[in-house]
Amino acid sequence: MKLARFTIDGSTRLGKVEGDRIVDLTDETKDCGGSMRLLLENYETLRPALEQVQAPSFPLADIRLEAPVADPRKFLAIGMNYKAHAEEAAAAGIKIPDSQLWFNKQVSCINGPYSDIVLPQASTMVDYEAELGFVIGKRCRHVKSEEARTVIAGYLVANDVTARDWQFRSPTYTLGKSFDTHGPIGPWITTDDEISDPHDLTLTLSLNGQERQRTSTGDMIYDIYDQIAYLSTVMTLEPGDIIITGTPANVGIATKTFMKPGDVVRVEVEALGAIENIFIAEV
Amino acid sequence: MKLARFTIDGSTRLGKVEGDRIVDLTDETKDCGGSMRLLLENYETLRPALEQVQAPSFPLADIRLEAPVADPRKFLAIGMNYKAHAEEAAAAGIKIPDSQLWFNKQVSCINGPYSDIVLPQASTMVDYEAELGFVIGKRCRHVKSEEARTVIAGYLVANDVTARDWQFRSPTYTLGKSFDTHGPIGPWITTDDEISDPHDLTLTLSLNGQERQRTSTGDMIYDIYDQIAYLSTVMTLEPGDIIITGTPANVGIATKTFMKPGDVVRVEVEALGAIENIFIAEV
Repeated sequence: MKLARFTIDGSTRLGKVEGDRIVDLTDETKDCGGSMRLLLENYETLRPALEQVQAPSFPLADIRLEAPVADPRKFLAIGMNYKAHAEEAAAAGIKIPDSQLWFNKQVSCINGPYSDIVLPQASTMVDYEAELGFVIGKRCRHVKSEEARTVIAGYLVANDVTARDWQFRSPTYTLGKSFDTHGPIGPWITTDDEISDPHDLTLTLSLNGQERQRTSTGDMIYDIYDQIAYLSTVMTLEPGDIIITGTPANVGIATKTFMKPGDVVRVEVEALGAIENIFIAEV
Repeated sequence: MKLARFTIDGSTRLGKVEGDRIVDLTDETKDCGGSMRLLLENYETLRPALEQVQAPSFPLADIRLEAPVADPRKFLAIGMNYKAHAEEAAAAGIKIPDSQLWFNKQVSCINGPYSDIVLPQASTMVDYEAELGFVIGKRCRHVKSEEARTVIAGYLVANDVTARDWQFRSPTYTLGKSFDTHGPIGPWITTDDEISDPHDLTLTLSLNGQERQRTSTGDMIYDIYDQIAYLSTVMTLEPGDIIITGTPANVGIATKTFMKPGDVVRVEVEALGAIENIFIAEV
C-alpha cells in the first residue's frame, strides 16, 4: 500500500494512492484523527479494511500531497553513511566517525513533498541531501539486525536540507539540520511488503533538472537493519518515527553550490516516487 | 499554578498542586485527552477555569506524579552553559563551543520525577546533570530576547542523565543523551507568573544525600531569553516543547563517579520543587 496524507477543499486526510488516484481513508481511520502516527500504531488491526476500501477516490491532480507523517515522536538521521560522501565531508574538514553518527532533525521542520522550502535570512549556505527514509511500524527495543525488517512500516523519499554554516558552528549538527521547512518527505509511505530489497534501490537528486546525486542504496556503510539494531540498543523506537539513512556523494558544498530562490530540487527513489521542492526567500 | 500529571487508581490525569494536595483537572481539560501539550496550547482559554476549580482533590501522598509533559514535540538541551562546567568538560577533552551548543534528548527518554532510571547494560559510564528546564507556552518564531519571557509557560526540574561512553563516541551527543528513562523531569510545571526571576534560583544536586552540584541559575553563559532568541531564529517553538538549560560544575565524570544500582539522585531548584530517582540495573 502507498499510505499518504492529502489536502482537498481545505481538509487534510489520510489516504492510499492507487495509480493516479488517491482513496480517502477517513472513514476507516476515524479513531486516528488524521494522524499517520496513530494509523501506524493500529496498522495490523486496520489493514484489512484499508486494503479493501475503493471509494471515494480523487485524481492526484486534484489534491495536494502533505508530509505522510507530520507528528512523529522522533525524526532521526545518520550522517556520513555513504563512503564517497564521507570522503567528501572529510575533505571539507569533517572527521569521519568510527561508529554510526546520529543526529536529530526537529519534527517542526517536516515539510510536504511538493511544498516550498524557505531559505532563511540567517543562512547563506543552504544545501540539499538526497536520502532514503523509513518509518517505524512497531514499538520496539533491543532489536537484532536479523529481525529488524519486521519493525519497518515502510519507506519514503527525503531531502535532508542543511544550513551548512549553522551545521559547522556546532559539532552536534542540531540547528543546521532543523530550520523550519527543511525536512521535506514523501510523496507517501510505500509499505514494506511492496519493496523486495530496500538496499537495492536507485536514489537520485537533480537540481534544476540536472542530475547531481546518484547511488544505489546498497552502498550504505551501515545498512537499515544495523541502524535499527544500534538505535534500539539505546531507545524505544515507536510507530511513526522517521529515520533517514544518509546521503551519497556530491552534495552542493562539494562544488560550493548553495540554494538560491527559484532553485528546484527533485529527489527520487526507485519504487518510492519523487519529491520536488522549490526554494524561496524568507520574507 | 503548579501544573502536573498524576496517576491514581491506574488512571493518569492532569492536575494542579496546591500545598500537599493535587486538584483533579480532568473535567476542565476534557478536550486535551490528558495531554499537557494540549493543555498548554489552550492555556489562555482554560486558565480562568483551571484557577477556580477546587475539588475533587487528593493528598499528594496518595498519587504518583508523572512527567508533567510526556508528549512534547521537542526536547532540546544546551551543552556547557555554565562556565565552571565548560572548564571541567574542556579538561576531559571536550572543546568549549564559541556559540550556543544544542542537542536533542529523544522524547522517548522522558521519565517521571520519582521513577526509576535504568542503567543500560550497554553503558558503564552513566552520569547525572542537574538542570533548570522551561516549557514553551506559545507557538513562536523569531522571538527577540527582550520579548522571550512571554513565550514561556513555566519551569521545571530536570536531570539530564548521560551515558558518557556513548556521548564521547560521537560529536553529536544524540545517543548518549537518549537512553530510555534518562530524561526525568518534574515534579510539575511552575507557571511563569509564580517566579520573579528564573535567573536567580539555586539549583542543587545530591547523590545518596551528599551534595554534588550547586549553582545559581544566574551563572548561565547564555540565559534563557538568549536561548529562546537563538533557537527561534532556526525553528518554530511550540507549546509543550521542553528546553533544559545546562548543568553546572561537578558532574560525576569530573571525579570518575558513575551511577550504580541503588544510587539515589535528587535535583532541586528553589521554588520549583525536587525530583528524586533511584538507579536500577537493566534486566
